Amino acid sequence: MVARYTKNGNPTDVIKVQTEDLGPVSPTGVVVKMLYAPINPADLNMVSGTYNFNPPLPAVGGSEGIAQVIALGSQASKLKVGDVVLPVHQGLGTWRTHANWEEGDLVPVTSIDIKHEYLASLSVNPATALRLLTDFANLKSGDVIVQNGANSMVGQSVIQIAAAKGIKSINIIRRRADFDQVVGTLKGLGATVVVADDFIRNGEFRNLIKSLPQPKLALNCVGGETTTEMIRLLAQGGTLVTYGGMSLKPVVIPTRSFIFNDLQCRGFWMSQWYEKHSVEDRLALLKELSALVKANKLQLRLEQMPFNNFENALNRAINSSQRDKKIVLSF
Amino acid sequence: MVARYTKNGNPTDVIKVQTEDLGPVSPTGVVVKMLYAPINPADLNMVSGTYNFNPPLPAVGGSEGIAQVIALGSQASKLKVGDVVLPVHQGLGTWRTHANWEEGDLVPVTSIDIKHEYLASLSVNPATALRLLTDFANLKSGDVIVQNGANSMVGQSVIQIAAAKGIKSINIIRRRADFDQVVGTLKGLGATVVVADDFIRNGEFRNLIKSLPQPKLALNCVGGETTTEMIRLLAQGGTLVTYGGMSLKPVVIPTRSFIFNDLQCRGFWMSQWYEKHSVEDRLALLKELSALVKANKLQLRLEQMPFNNFENALNRAINSSQRDKKIVLSF
Repeated sequence: MVARYTKNGNPTDVIKVQTEDLGPVSPTGVVVKMLYAPINPADLNMVSGTYNFNPPLPAVGGSEGIAQVIALGSQASKLKVGDVVLPVHQGLGTWRTHANWEEGDLVPVTSIDIKHEYLASLSVNPATALRLLTDFANLKSGDVIVQNGANSMVGQSVIQIAAAKGIKSINIIRRRADFDQVVGTLKGLGATVVVADDFIRNGEFRNLIKSLPQPKLALNCVGGETTTEMIRLLAQGGTLVTYGGMSLKPVVIPTRSFIFNDLQCRGFWMSQWYEKHSVEDRLALLKELSALVKANKLQLRLEQMPFNNFENALNRAINSSQRDKKIVLSF
Repeated sequence: MVARYTKNGNPTDVIKVQTEDLGPVSPTGVVVKMLYAPINPADLNMVSGTYNFNPPLPAVGGSEGIAQVIALGSQASKLKVGDVVLPVHQGLGTWRTHANWEEGDLVPVTSIDIKHEYLASLSVNPATALRLLTDFANLKSGDVIVQNGANSMVGQSVIQIAAAKGIKSINIIRRRADFDQVVGTLKGLGATVVVADDFIRNGEFRNLIKSLPQPKLALNCVGGETTTEMIRLLAQGGTLVTYGGMSLKPVVIPTRSFIFNDLQCRGFWMSQWYEKHSVEDRLALLKELSALVKANKLQLRLEQMPFNNFENALNRAINSSQRDKKIVLSF
């Protein structure tokens, strides 16, 4: 069974779950059984045709997930039956019970012994969080970062990875009905400060953070005013990294900050990181994240839903306005 | 005689030219006679009190210029009478006929044999242009840069230094009465393309530049819409550097460009470069610029005006709406 779309559009309209003949296995091919596959926002954008990378049509949805090898082509030599594997490229299509892929499209992760639903969900959001905290500033224990969209799965991962490294986090979330509960959740994950986006221009906010060093790094997945406010908080020589734009508003940078505070603004796209890095780099990244998971320092809020009720899972992923739990398809 | 201000405000109101007793020369002091000193916009902002660095009051205007040593303190050992020198720090106050400074505040440039009015005018605008073209992208012959404010003295220097290195430049200027004449001037300096800021959203503009490689570097001293348009022109991995904000509008960056095109936005402030670099680095920078001047590859459009008619020179510097010639005080 596959969740396939033959044209771009509203995911609930265009995705059809259908049976599929796997076809012949090529000499270097492998047949896999999917185990778990998350529904990420980027996947939905690919279906809509609004993402920066849109697979050729017809396409199967889903870019992330883990699978187990159940059969091999005659010349497949790198993998063996029983291996647990991840897809290397985005757009391979993970929302399906079985697939017939090429060996070279897969990375074996059998040796990483964490729960499979977790392993299926590390490559996009937690991986982004780790790279954001690693590649843009030389952060040491006691340093401070600030982020918006802090309740997203990237945001929650940032809080936990930062806390594990002794880095303090100032977290900005939207004002919402269950605000106090979300604050509690994020503080439970290790957030130093959690505030609503309507509070950051308030003098009390400055009071709240005055005992902290100025942030070296600001992480932006929202755009608009909260991003400009984060820039104003940055220490001399600080960096803003934009990895999303949920408000659909641009990043607005006051000229004085740029010139006199020696700021840098950068962009980050996890898919591009993967394209530019080796499989070994990818495995090192997964192992670092898995070690945090095993040490109980990185929890992911996942909600498993069976692929045989795909429509339900898709609706839940689309309509989960809070987006504080990730829907993971189980097969 | 010194051009002094005792409070911040409108330069024509608060600056008074007055006589001054030089006072005793310290053991490590030197007495200099000023030769030439430009009137830069940053100097006027310092007088107004609106710059990022404002000297303690009372203060003498002017940060750039050259002087000649006419007397030495008993322990001054690095300089000798007759040496030609530049001030190391901004805000030292160069709008005066004579000064009593410390040896450590001065860099000897006697060995650089270009016209003194040129040597007096390299440290701010042409130095900025050279750093902008050197420190933010790995530019090779045939590469393209884009800049706004292209008729400023930095902009004119960028055009010429780029041309000397085989780098093509796309130059954006304001629409103005003498537009055609300015286009001619900038092309004469080596500009590849010169367009008005109301033209860059025009499809014809895209036609005009379609045979050029996409720019690796965008230089911004304006802010607002032209800056956003420059960002849209940048090649994958390109960099925008902001060194001024003449429109008083911020830099607005579309989120997609940031994330998917792997762009960087940076700030640059020449004064900070000087603070972070050695006197040897400064001399190397001056020598590189002087070599371009000697090779007739870098012309500066200067207008000399005598310090004994300071009021006139100041008015000319303030009201020169075109700002395509730099007023240089001669002593």
